[in-house]
Amino acid sequence: MEKVRIALLGLGNVGKGVWNILKNNRETIMKRAGYDIEIAKILVRNTGKNRGVGVPDEILTTNVDEIFNDDSIKIVVEVIGGVEPAKDYILNAIRRKKHIVTANKLLIATNGEQIFKEARDMGVIINFEASVAGGIPVINSINESLTANKIQEVVGIINGTTNYILTKMTLEGMDFESALKEAQQKGYAEADPTSDVEGYDAVYKLAILTTLAFETKVNVDDIYVEGITKVRPKDIEYAKELGYVIKLLAIVKDVNGKLEVRVHPTMIPAIHTLANVNDSFNAILIKGNAVGDLMLCGRGAGELPTGSAVVSDIISVLRNDREGLNASDVQYNNREIANSGEIKSQYYLRITVKDMPGVLGKIATILGKNEVSILSFIQKPKKEDFVSLVLVTHETLEENIDKSLKEIKNLGMVDKVKNVIRIEELS
Amino acid sequence: MEKVRIALLGLGNVGKGVWNILKNNRETIMKRAGYDIEIAKILVRNTGKNRGVGVPDEILTTNVDEIFNDDSIKIVVEVIGGVEPAKDYILNAIRRKKHIVTANKLLIATNGEQIFKEARDMGVIINFEASVAGGIPVINSINESLTANKIQEVVGIINGTTNYILTKMTLEGMDFESALKEAQQKGYAEADPTSDVEGYDAVYKLAILTTLAFETKVNVDDIYVEGITKVRPKDIEYAKELGYVIKLLAIVKDVNGKLEVRVHPTMIPAIHTLANVNDSFNAILIKGNAVGDLMLCGRGAGELPTGSAVVSDIISVLRNDREGLNASDVQYNNREIANSGEIKSQYYLRITVKDMPGVLGKIATILGKNEVSILSFIQKPKKEDFVSLVLVTHETLEENIDKSLKEIKNLGMVDKVKNVIRIEELS
Repeated sequence: MEKVRIALLGLGNVGKGVWNILKNNRETIMKRAGYDIEIAKILVRNTGKNRGVGVPDEILTTNVDEIFNDDSIKIVVEVIGGVEPAKDYILNAIRRKKHIVTANKLLIATNGEQIFKEARDMGVIINFEASVAGGIPVINSINESLTANKIQEVVGIINGTTNYILTKMTLEGMDFESALKEAQQKGYAEADPTSDVEGYDAVYKLAILTTLAFETKVNVDDIYVEGITKVRPKDIEYAKELGYVIKLLAIVKDVNGKLEVRVHPTMIPAIHTLANVNDSFNAILIKGNAVGDLMLCGRGAGELPTGSAVVSDIISVLRNDREGLNASDVQYNNREIANSGEIKSQYYLRITVKDMPGVLGKIATILGKNEVSILSFIQKPKKEDFVSLVLVTHETLEENIDKSLKEIKNLGMVDKVKNVIRIEELS
Repeated sequence: MEKVRIALLGLGNVGKGVWNILKNNRETIMKRAGYDIEIAKILVRNTGKNRGVGVPDEILTTNVDEIFNDDSIKIVVEVIGGVEPAKDYILNAIRRKKHIVTANKLLIATNGEQIFKEARDMGVIINFEASVAGGIPVINSINESLTANKIQEVVGIINGTTNYILTKMTLEGMDFESALKEAQQKGYAEADPTSDVEGYDAVYKLAILTTLAFETKVNVDDIYVEGITKVRPKDIEYAKELGYVIKLLAIVKDVNGKLEVRVHPTMIPAIHTLANVNDSFNAILIKGNAVGDLMLCGRGAGELPTGSAVVSDIISVLRNDREGLNASDVQYNNREIANSGEIKSQYYLRITVKDMPGVLGKIATILGKNEVSILSFIQKPKKEDFVSLVLVTHETLEENIDKSLKEIKNLGMVDKVKNVIRIEELS
């Protein structure tokens, strides 16, 4: 069978996954791709390091030009991550007419439009399934399988680290810090967990999903983001009492023609399928005007699941290149993005107050004045001088909640607004 | 934008869905397909019938040759169902170099190999996403997104009618007959429900999934099938006590190089995600050696969900035809299919016996002699002269169960073997 030579940029976890899959599934992949795929070069920072996956030393290089200048290399697989130097490498490879497979969410989220344009101009393919939700074929589903639909909403658990932490807090009663530590010990969270726990990782993936599902530009800085660091065991406990589970959701929906795009901890009904997606699993719910609700669930990270998406993308390049297919045509229109102040949600409010008569009345009056109505209410027994009030509101604008909370904080009998968490009923 | 003319064969539910989607999502579909899609002809049996979807009379025809002989028609969309005349029509269209989109599970399951071969020879595309699980992109996932994987197992709830019935029995305590009647009233079950409730519909879909996931021929008659008509409220109740839920599962798995392919009511752990896929929803769990466990869940039937798959397939033909892509290359190798006697399962046995000492001992002795060991056991209070014994076994061969049950039935103190249901722990 004809050989085809490809290069990897990077040999971290995903790179190792790609290497192992191409080795272990070689026979079946050959039949499906129509080629015998040979990894001809791998760009690494340090050729001396032992990586323990049996990569022969002679294909490692620290000089990316060896890859660019090798005309026999048809596909460049970028698994370095980050904007630079990945962007520079990818653009260079495109200009040398090499097809690209990338797992780089940050790069596609922030520089996708330019990259797709240059690829289109050069007639090369960019495949990037691995950039969102690892092995789950969400990009292919939106780009290929759901093209008959106007997509109305995409809601996802697309960060495995935070889902693992929230699962531990929910099912085992851990606090955030212990759950984070366990996630780090298991390799689910990095030494610096900021990008995961503050929600940025989910924002990049959501930006990509927004562009694909709604064919629009979206600036990652315009996406509302709130991480999970402020979720307390008490919130998890009260959520349970109210019939909810807390998940970090990435949400984009078309509301009256504007797009709401946001990442935040969210209470969702405990009986909803998404509420039962646990540990480091990811899940994405897509609502289309023909297909209805479609859910995809699987491993959103890890060497082999992400490698699965990368290698399937490589095979797809080879199948399509053989037939002369051109670059995928990602649309970057200008849909209007809603400000967070315009977004309507239900809210959960947890407030500690002095144990005095009339306090609920005062709070309710402030809420009512600001057009926030109360759906349900629980008062918790006194603890260290204060009682906790847990309020669930009807749907209201964020600005109404903000105004209310400012006034509530100024009440003499109020100790603290302990937490504010959005609720989605997820029809 | 350039127009492209297509024809529908059939204007039942799916045909109407296709018509409505092409009308309602016309603008977005045009951009994605690169063509303005016009339904030029629709083959019907009776042009006089009012179908209430606003199809102009002049495009209806009862003469299929008007479609075959019209060279301007690029794609034939077959939504009649059944083997003949659908097969004859599709082969005729292929021979006239028209691309095919079909929703026909029975035809693809039984005649796929011939149809794909003729299409390959003529250089036309056959798309058939709608043939399995309606709008859920399971075929595209296996054929495109998971090509990096050796697939090890596919387990699905792929018949919405039986899932609706079992859900009603499980959550509302209905018996089979009442649940079936309700399914018929809601349009989920047909007047003659045989194909659904006896499992044949699921068998056809499983045959297609088996061919795609394991690149093999499979004869529908070689697939073990057992419907849900023998599932009693008592079984549902005892399943719950044991921590299980009963679902009609379609299963194909590679066990030591042989394929087990079967459709039967199955007890699965109540906490498993599949156990919570309710009503007429479908779900498919795919286990690949790289991606791990992937689940797809959504609407497996209905005008619009199935129409979503058909129309997305039409768009896919147009995108690929433009670039000169050839027919998809479905592989029909000869994988060995296991006989049902060779398949190991856990079993649930419900047996009514006379209330006498020693009866459990006799039954346990027979089971032990036949290499069936008991995992758990419940005895139910006496009712109408008999007590019910509920036994859960460890994994064993079907032939061991068969032999045991033959002997157990001959025990004087045994009234009846009321039911035998397989259990899958679904790791």
